[in-house]
Amino acid sequence: MDVQPLLIAGEWRAAPASCKRLRAVDPATGEAIGPDFPVSGEADVEAALASASAAADELAAAPPSRIAGFLDGYAQAIDDDAAALVALAHAETALPADTRLAKVELPRTSRQLRLAAQAVRDYAWTQPVIDTAADLRSHYAPLHKPVLVFGPNNFPFAFNAAAGSDFASAIAARNPVIAKAHPSHPATSQRLAELAHRALLQAGLPAASMQLLYQFDRRLGLELAGDARLGAIGFTGSRSGGLALKAAADQAGIPMYAELSSVNPVFLLPGALAERGAALAQEFFASCTMGSGQFCTNPGLVVVPEGDAGDAFVNAAIALFNAAPPGVLFSRGVRDQLEQAVTALRDWGAVCLAGGTSAGPGFRFRATLLQVGARAFLKHPLELQREAFGPASLLVRARDLDDMLAVTAGLEGNLTGTLYGATDGGDDEAMARLAQRLRPRVGRLIANRMPTGVAVSAAMNHGGPYPSTGHPGFTAVGMPAAIRRFAALHCYDNVADHLLPPELRDRNPGGVARQVDGQWRSDDLPPPSPAP
Amino acid sequence: MDVQPLLIAGEWRAAPASCKRLRAVDPATGEAIGPDFPVSGEADVEAALASASAAADELAAAPPSRIAGFLDGYAQAIDDDAAALVALAHAETALPADTRLAKVELPRTSRQLRLAAQAVRDYAWTQPVIDTAADLRSHYAPLHKPVLVFGPNNFPFAFNAAAGSDFASAIAARNPVIAKAHPSHPATSQRLAELAHRALLQAGLPAASMQLLYQFDRRLGLELAGDARLGAIGFTGSRSGGLALKAAADQAGIPMYAELSSVNPVFLLPGALAERGAALAQEFFASCTMGSGQFCTNPGLVVVPEGDAGDAFVNAAIALFNAAPPGVLFSRGVRDQLEQAVTALRDWGAVCLAGGTSAGPGFRFRATLLQVGARAFLKHPLELQREAFGPASLLVRARDLDDMLAVTAGLEGNLTGTLYGATDGGDDEAMARLAQRLRPRVGRLIANRMPTGVAVSAAMNHGGPYPSTGHPGFTAVGMPAAIRRFAALHCYDNVADHLLPPELRDRNPGGVARQVDGQWRSDDLPPPSPAP
Repeated sequence: MDVQPLLIAGEWRAAPASCKRLRAVDPATGEAIGPDFPVSGEADVEAALASASAAADELAAAPPSRIAGFLDGYAQAIDDDAAALVALAHAETALPADTRLAKVELPRTSRQLRLAAQAVRDYAWTQPVIDTAADLRSHYAPLHKPVLVFGPNNFPFAFNAAAGSDFASAIAARNPVIAKAHPSHPATSQRLAELAHRALLQAGLPAASMQLLYQFDRRLGLELAGDARLGAIGFTGSRSGGLALKAAADQAGIPMYAELSSVNPVFLLPGALAERGAALAQEFFASCTMGSGQFCTNPGLVVVPEGDAGDAFVNAAIALFNAAPPGVLFSRGVRDQLEQAVTALRDWGAVCLAGGTSAGPGFRFRATLLQVGARAFLKHPLELQREAFGPASLLVRARDLDDMLAVTAGLEGNLTGTLYGATDGGDDEAMARLAQRLRPRVGRLIANRMPTGVAVSAAMNHGGPYPSTGHPGFTAVGMPAAIRRFAALHCYDNVADHLLPPELRDRNPGGVARQVDGQWRSDDLPPPSPAP
Repeated sequence: MDVQPLLIAGEWRAAPASCKRLRAVDPATGEAIGPDFPVSGEADVEAALASASAAADELAAAPPSRIAGFLDGYAQAIDDDAAALVALAHAETALPADTRLAKVELPRTSRQLRLAAQAVRDYAWTQPVIDTAADLRSHYAPLHKPVLVFGPNNFPFAFNAAAGSDFASAIAARNPVIAKAHPSHPATSQRLAELAHRALLQAGLPAASMQLLYQFDRRLGLELAGDARLGAIGFTGSRSGGLALKAAADQAGIPMYAELSSVNPVFLLPGALAERGAALAQEFFASCTMGSGQFCTNPGLVVVPEGDAGDAFVNAAIALFNAAPPGVLFSRGVRDQLEQAVTALRDWGAVCLAGGTSAGPGFRFRATLLQVGARAFLKHPLELQREAFGPASLLVRARDLDDMLAVTAGLEGNLTGTLYGATDGGDDEAMARLAQRLRPRVGRLIANRMPTGVAVSAAMNHGGPYPSTGHPGFTAVGMPAAIRRFAALHCYDNVADHLLPPELRDRNPGGVARQVDGQWRSDDLPPPSPAP
């Protein structure tokens, strides 16, 4: 059987017939599906890096209207191809075709590209700052180097290395992308890259603005991540893999934006439980098992008061978890890791209340609830907040608010932290005290809703303190902020108007919002005052 | 003789009598001056880190008005104490007391603190973003962890770990500072810390908001830089020292903002030389020898056309350099490193046109000009762009524009890059081509002025691509941008108004500029529309 081609240097290139190969696997059956895809060796990786590097200056010089045209065109192509894309992604991931892929994730992906296009058109990501007295002008600008994007397994569209937030952000900042697809959905990634490639050509951008590789071995990955020709790396995936790549990137001075792991602690306060415990159990169950729990923001650690209301919540949750059919996981690897994580949590003292085991056919796992006391949790907090990626959550039972506060102190950096309180204000004081403790430990502090919805919004932070991500100041979701990860700060000092980028010139015909002498304005600069 | 105290845990603490000690040295004579200062061991370092960590939450919760009050109060105390501070700094650094320290650097330092205070008062550094439909609100917020600041030798006030830009930025973001003074000016640092400490107490901020250590050994420094209790590190200094610390910080996931080294290439175009070659020689000489050339933005590499106009420029420069008295360097170490750098540049083929040797008394070095051809430069570009910190510059002679363009391709990341062109527009095309090539390689692109003036401006970028700094997206100078280095992105999702920080609340009585649903505005949020 022929092996599928790679997208390198602006064209779909045959992979060497002798190359190692991979195939997708239907997670619902465990059977291999679809064609052979190439595992890249050194020659492919070097060709991708060299051609991306060669395209970098041309892409950086492209007019923003052309970049925005590409992003919009690609978004439309994704929408137009929705049926085929959803069918491929459903086969490769077993995510619900209609309720998840077609109705939520695909529209989110094209919308994200369109929001990136808008940020390009209005220059919002460049944050122009002008000091007229000193004649200094600065803004965020392209890196003039390729961005390497590692896509995760859990969003075949919205975080796909060839279509997701990192891709949209890096291209919006006018940097070429080397997309490293996740090997669990190669055909989905290929089809997206085909659409992107056609849209690039239609928009008149360099054809080598993106490359697609499906897989390479660990050693090659570390070499690539540490290659000084890269401008930055975007990574969503496991902590161990991410930290190994980050070490290589750090050594070469390459910024790596890594979204690594998070247990997303949720605190249920007594008033909320008394008021709506059964509804909360339902809400928690839905959030924890949606997409088989394979979300970065899955509620993996829920702090529940001891006592009757807490017990009632736990019993309601147990009933829901027990009644749920086993969730299909993305791969054998995900299932094996979840098994290991659950075993480790039990070894450290957690008791299994529901599920806890895998099932067949394919890579299924039962919806899993574990429980541990707050005092026991605090004896081994690091071991007991190990991420169990999948439909699993650890309940931590707290005797009182002091227990809850003590638990916050044992938490590592997380993407999110959530507080549920009573609507009548009865939990307000406890909410305030917990919020204060939780705030520095999470990127997004949430009240009274589950963490799994990550809105694509300018005000979103899908980021957080180490080790949930590699840097606390950046978000992976939300335009224009996500774009600035892939940008360099550029200052112009006494440079003639015609050598400036458009948004820093005296005239501002597009009405770009700029900070001029400390004020946000969108008009032209005043003409210089005549010499006295 | 008694050893001077350390500022730890909010008080001036006696150092152990048995501790290792250091003294300042008058660079003009090489003689030790002033009292003994302690070299800290493990106990001091741990005490500083523990007390700073303990103060972090309280400082983060301090009202911005109190932070701004401290910054303004400290600025005023520095201005009021100018005579004593200048005398100490002059004795310890040999920098000109009046023209540099009193008239330029000290006012710059207090102004920087006042600009930080202003950014705190108007919340400019926090960049509030509100999405009313999704009820998401985000801003930059304190790290809730200490910031470790390493001050350099070359700015006893403006980059002092206890008073400079990193200090002002970290405190403005409401993080405690562990100031590691530069051991070449301990008395200056001590006096600044005394003023800061008094201003902290007067402002009602936690007394442990800053700690002052004078020195510790390399092993302890690496341990401290890799301690996960730190929130971030600010570093200005040598590339080798900075990269060792950065490796330790990277491993622990601690962002380190390192300003490392830069040769600040300057390109003189033929029209500019023909028009004003003699004036340019004077301008270059002044920039290269001011402060004995000990600036991060010293013009260390100047590309000069071959031919008569270029020769005339070089000869004029040689005359100026030869006529200059040897410059006093900060320390024996600086002098030794400059000797080594000049030797290395000569070993790689540069010819010495002026100076090149040290002189006495104290740590003096002759104003030094070296020269190499562009082709020879491009054979060993890395070796020949080694920073020679001090009054030294390497002239690279280019046969034509192609030579100049080729030189840009051999350049590492730099803080600045400068182009000089004719006022009549005769160099415009060459300027444009060089600017395009230079732009991605430098943080600040300059036309027709020397790089040594680093204005404290919101539009400044004192940063640049690796290895001039550790991250291309941040500036060490200029408020409010420099503050954001020491901040975390915080999002609030559906959180009640009274739990929000002031600048994210519905009401906006202070008129803070916020991005609301994509528009910059400074008014209150509209009341939510009534349910239909």
